[in-house]
Formats: sequence, structure tokens, C-alpha cells
Amino acid sequence: MASKPSIPKGTRDFGPVESARRQYIFSTISDVFALFGFARIETPAVENLSTLLGKYGDEGDRLIFKVLNSGDYLSGIDSEELVEANCRKLATRICEKGLRYDLTVPFARFVVQHRQELQMPFKRFQIQPVWRADRPQKGRYREFYQCDADVVGSASLLSEVELLQMIDEVFSRLGIRIVIHLNNRKVLAGIARLINAPEHLTDITVAIDKIDKIGIDNVAEELLQRGLTPEQVDLLRPILALDGSIDERLDSLGALLASTEEGAEGVSELRFVADSVRAIGLRAELRIDPSLARGLDYYTGTIIEVKAADVAIGSISGGGRYDNLTGVFGMPGIPGVGISFGADRIYDVLAALDKFPSDSTTSVQVMFANFGPAEALESMKIMKRMRAEGIAAEIYPDAAKMKKQMGRADAMSIPFVAMIGADEMAQGTIALKNMTTGKQLRVSIDEAIALIKKPVQ
Amino acid sequence: MASKPSIPKGTRDFGPVESARRQYIFSTISDVFALFGFARIETPAVENLSTLLGKYGDEGDRLIFKVLNSGDYLSGIDSEELVEANCRKLATRICEKGLRYDLTVPFARFVVQHRQELQMPFKRFQIQPVWRADRPQKGRYREFYQCDADVVGSASLLSEVELLQMIDEVFSRLGIRIVIHLNNRKVLAGIARLINAPEHLTDITVAIDKIDKIGIDNVAEELLQRGLTPEQVDLLRPILALDGSIDERLDSLGALLASTEEGAEGVSELRFVADSVRAIGLRAELRIDPSLARGLDYYTGTIIEVKAADVAIGSISGGGRYDNLTGVFGMPGIPGVGISFGADRIYDVLAALDKFPSDSTTSVQVMFANFGPAEALESMKIMKRMRAEGIAAEIYPDAAKMKKQMGRADAMSIPFVAMIGADEMAQGTIALKNMTTGKQLRVSIDEAIALIKKPVQ
Repeated sequence: MASKPSIPKGTRDFGPVESARRQYIFSTISDVFALFGFARIETPAVENLSTLLGKYGDEGDRLIFKVLNSGDYLSGIDSEELVEANCRKLATRICEKGLRYDLTVPFARFVVQHRQELQMPFKRFQIQPVWRADRPQKGRYREFYQCDADVVGSASLLSEVELLQMIDEVFSRLGIRIVIHLNNRKVLAGIARLINAPEHLTDITVAIDKIDKIGIDNVAEELLQRGLTPEQVDLLRPILALDGSIDERLDSLGALLASTEEGAEGVSELRFVADSVRAIGLRAELRIDPSLARGLDYYTGTIIEVKAADVAIGSISGGGRYDNLTGVFGMPGIPGVGISFGADRIYDVLAALDKFPSDSTTSVQVMFANFGPAEALESMKIMKRMRAEGIAAEIYPDAAKMKKQMGRADAMSIPFVAMIGADEMAQGTIALKNMTTGKQLRVSIDEAIALIKKPVQ
Repeated sequence: MASKPSIPKGTRDFGPVESARRQYIFSTISDVFALFGFARIETPAVENLSTLLGKYGDEGDRLIFKVLNSGDYLSGIDSEELVEANCRKLATRICEKGLRYDLTVPFARFVVQHRQELQMPFKRFQIQPVWRADRPQKGRYREFYQCDADVVGSASLLSEVELLQMIDEVFSRLGIRIVIHLNNRKVLAGIARLINAPEHLTDITVAIDKIDKIGIDNVAEELLQRGLTPEQVDLLRPILALDGSIDERLDSLGALLASTEEGAEGVSELRFVADSVRAIGLRAELRIDPSLARGLDYYTGTIIEVKAADVAIGSISGGGRYDNLTGVFGMPGIPGVGISFGADRIYDVLAALDKFPSDSTTSVQVMFANFGPAEALESMKIMKRMRAEGIAAEIYPDAAKMKKQMGRADAMSIPFVAMIGADEMAQGTIALKNMTTGKQLRVSIDEAIALIKKPVQ
């Protein structure tokens, strides 16, 4: 028991500075969600395995952490069965529950279970941890937070417009320049229809995505190798060569896909969304990107992906529209659209850009030095006044040597140290030391409050 | 898969209203923690079983949810072992991890693991869920939040004074009148020493606790039955009869326990804490209560328990001082003192007293009605301005019948509905309906912002 303790691999402790920075990200996101009329819900960390299994594919089922039944979990399992059982089969006999793998399936379960109480369209957000038994590696954890917002019960494209504004507002508040990539599943379906090769849809999107890196001719070559005919590749060339502004791209796509009903509808939806967000005003760069295909099986309309403009780290937010969130729980026909923010990657981007606000790293604004019982009591009376003004204050708990006390303030980057000695007690003043400038002033309590409240230069 | 989905027993979904109310409690508590210089930390939901087991007694070990090892968890276990294994033995073979049972043990583990990075005294708070495989019943859940604040690395009683002020401030902000019961483990030890019956300490505290209900004579009778001698009971009588103000009780206890070194020290500590918080100013009622013995084995000094004055629901907060938080992880001699808030009971008290602020139940302040694409776009431009002013706004996603649209605003208690029709677009005005009074005004955008921001009467 005396060996140095540790935590399970793939999990993390967050100390004061990391926690404050994470809270800054979470509260920025939740503030914006709330401004747009999304309401927070919370679901349990532990769901029934019957809710979770079969929703994420075979690989997903394997990655769900299962919780051992409490009590006599072997009851009803005879020894023959035990010996014969393989891990997967036995797991569902001795485990009824599992840890939440994402927020989408619990949300779908929530909508079905509480449908009588929900006002449709229902706009919810959820910021909670999820768990995956993935192999841990840099940037991939077994416990991490998801920050999701979804509108369900409406097919209106205004929801997309609002979600894009939310993305724009969140990253604007965080000070991260972004590029929003926009596509539509119907555009992809139209392309596949156009060249009469729906089975090659994935090959096509992968190929389009490579154009910047290897050029159109190499992409065309690759598509031939993957089984497309030269005629099909020729038909694709204008899409591979798609370039220019938002409007130019929409016009080209519109002309190319005019002959396919679904493709034309996709272009029209893209145009509505792009026109609306631009009319309302978008700070982010918007890009029409027919190579975007994230979660192809899942999304049925708009597809959104967000990348940081100044840090190469992959997607930091994304989402899209789906037709049938709750069908798997016996409630078909509920359309929806949602976005998700990747808190861990956003953290890394803010760290890389050095964009965390300085007050997100220090919690205490003033430390009172401790000169003895009477001075400490007087200090605590003054601290009560300061806290009523919203100032975070602490007192050094013992009358230790001044060097040691100041050392704490230094180490914790506390911007001010207040000293109440015999003179100050007699005069009702404070000796206030600005730890940044090193300057020390004798001031009244009100003056001290004003100085501490003023942002540090 | 089409059966109605459910969640594991003892767990809960929190919809928009409950979540908003819970956030109100959490943010009130964390705001106060921060004002007093406590920094948030977060630890993983899943800890190694070696960290958790043996810390909560046999019963606790049984109540820890264990997480099945991922992958081939049966590897290395031969079939003989499998057949012979009992549930407890097998569990530790097939599970390496468990869900956090409280926040104290993970905090102790955190302090030991990160001791090099921590500034002592280290003041941390932590607001996270914990899981217990308890039998669920009214008010007892298998997943619930704990809200803890602790100071470790200092024996100074100023920490107690600060923690009591924090309790006072939290419940004052929440609008809950409280009684703070205060005791000290050393006082209890002194009492046991006084009557020379340390083995009867629990009997004595249980008995003292019953005085209000059954009277001194019945309590004395019970103590005799539990094996105390008549002489011991006589020595106890003045403590059983303890009454009066804080100072009277402290004086009586001081006189009674003067002969026991530990008891006298306990009274002196109690006096310092009670005098200090009263000098600084305490709104809560403070009561010296020698029957208070929560977590007797654990606490070594101050013991704190908080009860709501106006709702009979048991303890809603509590804590105390301990000598050796981290000894079990090989790091002895770290003293500390902490408090914990019971969020679920506080929720119930606020509900019983109807003290949730009204704005904790509605997230959207204004809903824009939808009269068609052009009007919707104009509305969304205005919404952007309103959100920049901090107003939570939404638009009905479709141009549905007005009755249906107003129905949503009604059902969700949205205080204002804004209507932008052709006239309003031409004039740059808003038709703003106050849903509480039913009154509708045509106003400028700035006027609308002012009206919506003004708290609803």
C-alpha cells in the first residue's frame, strides 16, 4: 500500500492551472450554447449495456468499459458455462452496465425516455466525460470530455445557421482563428449518382481530399486504380478541380449536379446555409468542401468540420445533420442536427497560441501575510470586505518567516500581498505590495480594493 | 432493441430545469470556494482498485463499482481457478480499476502523486460525481456529486475559521438558514478519559444525541444498560445537561475537562474557532455540540456538521480536521481540514423552501416568431445584436402557425416573444410581447434590449 500511487493509463489528473483553463473552455462553450437557447442536460456516466451495445459497430462494442455487476455476479452461471465462456460472451453475463462511450447515444436514449416532457424542437447541450478502452497515445485518452449541442425535432436549416454562428462565436471568444469546412451528404450522393458509382463514394471523397497534396493528375490515376473507368474519372474532373470563392464553388457544383435531384438539393441547402450565415455576419473563414465526409454513414444532410487556421492539429469541432437519431430506440422520424467541440484539442490550440487569459491561471488575487493572532483576525475582517467585492483572498495560515510567506505568493503568482502589522491596525490601513512591480504602498481598505480590482498591467 | 430504454437503478437523468438548478448550486459553491483561495482540481472517474480498496472498510470495498479489464480479461486465469473462485476473489483478478467512491481518497492519492508540484498549504476544491453500489432508496443514489474543499499541509486553526466562513457564505447566498454544529475530537477523548471509559465513546455520543428526544434520565438509564457504572454516568451528567449559549457551554466544558489535557486542548480549540468566526461575523447560528461525532475514526480535531434550520433533512454539509490524510499512500504527517457540501440534499432543501431563483429555470429570454425566410433572416440579425448584449435568444425554426409558435414560448416559460413582420422590417422595429403581462409593444431594437434585460416583475 505504500508504493507510489498512480492512475489508470489513458486517464489524467488536472491540477489547479489545468482545471482553471479547462473551466475557461467549458464555460465559454456553455455560455454561448445558453445564449443560443440551448439547455443543459446531464445523463448518468453508467448506462445499461443494452443501451450502448450495437450502436458503435463491433470495434465500438469492444471499446466500451463494462462495469462488473455488484453482489453475487456469478450467480446463475454454472461452472461449465464459466469454463467455456469466451471474454465477450461472459462479459454480458457478468456486466449489465457500461461507461458512456459518447454523448449522442445517451442523448437519443434520453429523448425517447423523456419524450412526453420535451418541447420539440428540443435544443440541448451536454458537457460530460466519456470513456473508451482505446489504446492510449498522444492526444488520445481513455477519459475525455465531449461538448455537444443538438437540435432535434426540426428539419429547418435555420438550425444549421444557428450552429455555425455558435461555432463562430465560441472560437471568436477563445481567440482562435478558424476555417469552417461545409459539405452536404446529398452533394456526395449526387456526385456518386452523376458518375453512376455509388459504391465508390468513399474512394472519391478520399481522393478529393488528397488534391492539395498530390495534384489532380495523381488523384485521377489513383481513382483508375481503385476501379473507376476513364469516363467516370473524366466526369469527376470538374469536381476535383473545384476552386474559387464560396459562390464560384456553389455555382460550379450547382451546374455539375443539376441533373441529379439529390445533388441539386444538396447544393441548394449548402447555398441557403452559406448565404444566411454570411448575411448575418461570420468572422470565421467558410469553405465549401466536397471532400468532407466525416461520419458518412451517420449524416444525411449538412456536414461541418472546423479546423484551427494557425495550428495544424486536425478537427477541433464538427457535426452535421441526421435523419433518425432515435430510431434505434423505437422512435423513428426525429430529425436533428448537432455539433461537438473537442475540448482537449482546443486546450492544445490555446496552449500553442498562448491564448489562455492570464487570470485563468491564478485564482487568488491577494494573499494576506500573517504576523500573529491579532493581526490575522484583523486581516480576516478586511478579507471579508474584499470578498464581498468579489476579490479572491487568502491568508497565510501561520505566522511563519516573511520570506517563506512571500515565497508562497511568488510561487502561486498571486498579484498582491497585503500586510497588516501593528501600525496598519492602529491606522486602519493596509501595506499593499504589488508583486509584479515590487512597489509597496500604504493605502486605505477602499483604495486597496480598487487597486486589486484593477487588472494587473 | 425497440423496447423502451431505461437507465440503471440509482442513477438519474437531469433535464433542462433540474440541470440549471444543479448548476446554480454548483456555481454558488465553487464561486465561494474560489473567493477563499481554493483552486479546483479534477481526478479521473476511474481509479486503480489498489488505490480504492481497503480505504472504506469491508462494506466500502463491497460497494465500489469495479470496471472489467478490457481485452482478454480471462487470460492467465485457468479454468480450475475460474470454477473455484468466489465473486470477491475473481473480481480483483478480472478488474484492475474501479469507479471513484468518494473524493477524499483520490485527493490523498493526488497529493502524494503530485507532491513535488504542490505549494503547501494546498487548498483544493473538487466537484465531481462518485459512485456507490448501495441499495438505491429515497434520497440515496448510486451516482451523486460531492463538493469538497480541503486545506492540507497546515495545522493552523485559521483554516477552520475560513471553512466555517465559507459554509456561512454558501448558505447565505443560497438563502438557506442553517445551524452549524461544532465539536472537537479531543473534547470527546477528554470526556472518555474523564470517566475512564474510552471503549464507550460511541455509546456516549449516541446517548448525548438522544437527550432532546428522550430526556436525560432515559439517556442515563440507557448508558447503564450499555455497561457504564453509576459513577461513570454521574460524572457524565453535567455534559449530558450541557446547555446555554456558546460561551456558557464552552465555560462548562472547560471546567469539566480541565483535568484532562486532551479535553482542555479541545475546548481551547473550540473556543478559538468560535471566537474568531464570531468576531469576523457569522450569519449562521453556531452551536457547541459535544454529541457530534461524525466520522469519529477519521477526524482528529474540529468536527463540523451543518443542518438546515427550516427543513428536517439531516446534515447538508460537514467536515473536520484529520492528521494523516496521505499516510495510507506512504506519505505520513500531512495534516488537513476539509468540508463537504451535499448537493442533492441542498437541492431538496431549496425545492422545499421554494428558494431557487426564477431565472434558474428558464434559459431563453426571448423567442423570435418565424414569419418566413426574409423575416427569419432579419430576426437572426437582430438576435445577433441581442446576444452580444448577453440576451439568450432563439427563433422558432419553421414558419408554423402562430398558435403553435406561441405555445412553445408558453410551455417553456420564455418571458418575451419578438415578432418581425413586414411592417417591422420596413420600420426597423420589433413587436415585443411580454408573455407574463400579455402586453405587446412596438419598440426599437435598443428599447427591446432594455425591456428584455430588465428583470421580469
